[in-house]
Amino acid sequence: MAPPVPALMSEIGQRARAAMRVLALVPAEAKSAALRAAAAAIRTAGRGILAANALDLAEMRAAGRASSFIDRATLDPGRIEAMARGVDEIADLPDPVGRVLARFERPNGLLIERVSTPLGVVGVIYESRPNVTADAAALCLMAGNAAILRSGSETLRTAEAIAAAMARGIAEAGLPVDAVQLVPTRDRAAVGEMLAGLGGTVDVIVPRGGRSLVERVQSEARVPVFAHLEGLCHVFVHGQADLAMATGIVLNAKMRRTGVCGAAETLLVDRACADTHLTPLVEALLQAGCEVRGDEVVRAVDPRVAAASEADWSTEYLDAIISARVVDGLDGALAHIDRYSSHHTDAIVTADDAAAARFLAEVDSAIVLHNASTQFADGGEFGFGGEIGIATGRMHARGPVGVEQLTSFKYRIHGSGQTRPS
Amino acid sequence: MAPPVPALMSEIGQRARAAMRVLALVPAEAKSAALRAAAAAIRTAGRGILAANALDLAEMRAAGRASSFIDRATLDPGRIEAMARGVDEIADLPDPVGRVLARFERPNGLLIERVSTPLGVVGVIYESRPNVTADAAALCLMAGNAAILRSGSETLRTAEAIAAAMARGIAEAGLPVDAVQLVPTRDRAAVGEMLAGLGGTVDVIVPRGGRSLVERVQSEARVPVFAHLEGLCHVFVHGQADLAMATGIVLNAKMRRTGVCGAAETLLVDRACADTHLTPLVEALLQAGCEVRGDEVVRAVDPRVAAASEADWSTEYLDAIISARVVDGLDGALAHIDRYSSHHTDAIVTADDAAAARFLAEVDSAIVLHNASTQFADGGEFGFGGEIGIATGRMHARGPVGVEQLTSFKYRIHGSGQTRPS
Repeated sequence: MAPPVPALMSEIGQRARAAMRVLALVPAEAKSAALRAAAAAIRTAGRGILAANALDLAEMRAAGRASSFIDRATLDPGRIEAMARGVDEIADLPDPVGRVLARFERPNGLLIERVSTPLGVVGVIYESRPNVTADAAALCLMAGNAAILRSGSETLRTAEAIAAAMARGIAEAGLPVDAVQLVPTRDRAAVGEMLAGLGGTVDVIVPRGGRSLVERVQSEARVPVFAHLEGLCHVFVHGQADLAMATGIVLNAKMRRTGVCGAAETLLVDRACADTHLTPLVEALLQAGCEVRGDEVVRAVDPRVAAASEADWSTEYLDAIISARVVDGLDGALAHIDRYSSHHTDAIVTADDAAAARFLAEVDSAIVLHNASTQFADGGEFGFGGEIGIATGRMHARGPVGVEQLTSFKYRIHGSGQTRPS
Repeated sequence: MAPPVPALMSEIGQRARAAMRVLALVPAEAKSAALRAAAAAIRTAGRGILAANALDLAEMRAAGRASSFIDRATLDPGRIEAMARGVDEIADLPDPVGRVLARFERPNGLLIERVSTPLGVVGVIYESRPNVTADAAALCLMAGNAAILRSGSETLRTAEAIAAAMARGIAEAGLPVDAVQLVPTRDRAAVGEMLAGLGGTVDVIVPRGGRSLVERVQSEARVPVFAHLEGLCHVFVHGQADLAMATGIVLNAKMRRTGVCGAAETLLVDRACADTHLTPLVEALLQAGCEVRGDEVVRAVDPRVAAASEADWSTEYLDAIISARVVDGLDGALAHIDRYSSHHTDAIVTADDAAAARFLAEVDSAIVLHNASTQFADGGEFGFGGEIGIATGRMHARGPVGVEQLTSFKYRIHGSGQTRPS
């Protein structure tokens, strides 16, 4: 009989804590070697992983899950190789632990260093996406953290096969097998236990999934959370924007992939260039197959433009739909964004550097861009070698959360007998 | 009639949020000027502040409060001048906002900058220490944050007089008067409202006070907290320690001020030097008026040494009492500290650099020192120009929380029309 969930989870927390102590002191080469061994083990276990995945997929089909959901959960040899390659790439990153972040000598001769350390134990709660198991485990381990992974229950077999392969690799390389633990139950009570912090053993929770998962995590977690609820991203085409550049950026920001959090959801066009820019921008979007919901001025451009309701300005479509309106200059754009942005990623297109500087300073979002697509909101595009998520909070991590953001720091002080005067 | 507490606090949160938006964009000179004006206003208001303080003190005496408590709450002209000078010193700090923390160019030509920004709205909940009002307000404002201050209720009049003076100075200098708001009620429900985040307007809570306050904040807060529960700090005298240096450091770490969180609470002596070092260390402590509670070996040194119980190893005395034991080398010390340390500050005294390096790497505390007193655990001693507290968590801030730790960051991306390939 399986142990009750609280006892099971408490045991997992204790094991993670013990593994964390070892991992914190492991040199970079050992972590890289363990990840390379894990990647190799994923390749070796490919057939077993596919077999487990086939069982999960059969159950999903029997349960009548949507084909898009099943697609995302489906592995094939190419996706397994991509997963293994992702782990290898994380193994190649420079060690995020032990960096001297600051170093200063005090008048009394004390030398003070701020040095990066692991965060500790990271709990990752995700939906049925098999690659997250490998990604999250590798990022946590490279940053010296122990990971507790809670997979979406419908891909639990797949996740177990991947995690077991990685654990074999990690153990072969001599690191603690509990560095990466997968929660071995579908019982949702396990999520509640993680959000309560497993008796103080979990340092941070990272949710990866849709709005309902993230909302539950944010409202229930008793430990810090790196999360973004949604990416309600704006592109503002300023009066001084080059039309060709603006068209390219707007199309890419909206249509490259509509389902990612960095996809644009709202187009703001400066009244100063509406006469020349609005029609070509709207026509380009319509032509690309994007539904446009606009204010009155935008609707006048083309009969296919639907009327935007108030709700549209705060809707993350994650689809080929965009809301569009004309605003009065930079100030109008800033006011709209301040009201509706989810503080994720917002962009301005302009040839006016002063306007760009104000936009970058005043928009309170994790990522602000000048003359570039919002779809660059991605740890890989930042050169972080992958990300465990994108944070829209202001605490600790903001923007793409890569290995560097999965660290903390401590102060090392070197003295020669100093005592503090009264 | 006063408005009900939830409505009052919600209003305070909204005002803080509005002030925060302005503060985030204010140049350093304006913040410095506002703080200098606030310091001048504190000096000008000195007599009024003392009159308010006299009313608070009379009430405390009538309520039969302990004299040590009343002492800490008592202002005099010297303490008011020290408070104003503290604010002036914070005004002189370099701007913590707008620092380029990282800057990298991507192969596609995107230039990515990580730039420091304010955290937002900081809630400070403290006990009856008048100087915290001025310190906390100044640190928050210099970092571009709006502050909501909840003073201990017994010094509320004093805090109101100080906050009102600072608000006058801040307003004269042209910054939003709501940059610093003091909660104007003794009702404890106001604390509950702050811990709940005032409808999403509070970004972080900093408790400053004793264990029961910090425990309440940590267990009830629905927003991030910078806190340390206690400073259970160790000094380990390693086998290769110079006796004179060890004696100086141990005496200073324990006795310079016994009531501060960086005061040592436990002395660990390496068995390898116990024969030569233990007696002089214990005698020096006893001679300085410190009660020593030891294991059997330590008790054998002097009949005045009491027996340490298991509870002593996890007791933060904040008094002239120290627990002391002999451990088996560096590994013995590391094991003891791992078990009992509060992850605040721990020190090793040794001439052996390899032992020191292991200690600094393996002790999982915010501050680790080699050949220096634990009493250096202080933002001022770090050159931070003051601190709002010392954090023992691993998220965002760790160790002394100065203006730099009261910031967040954002990514500014400069492009020339880049779009992301599919």
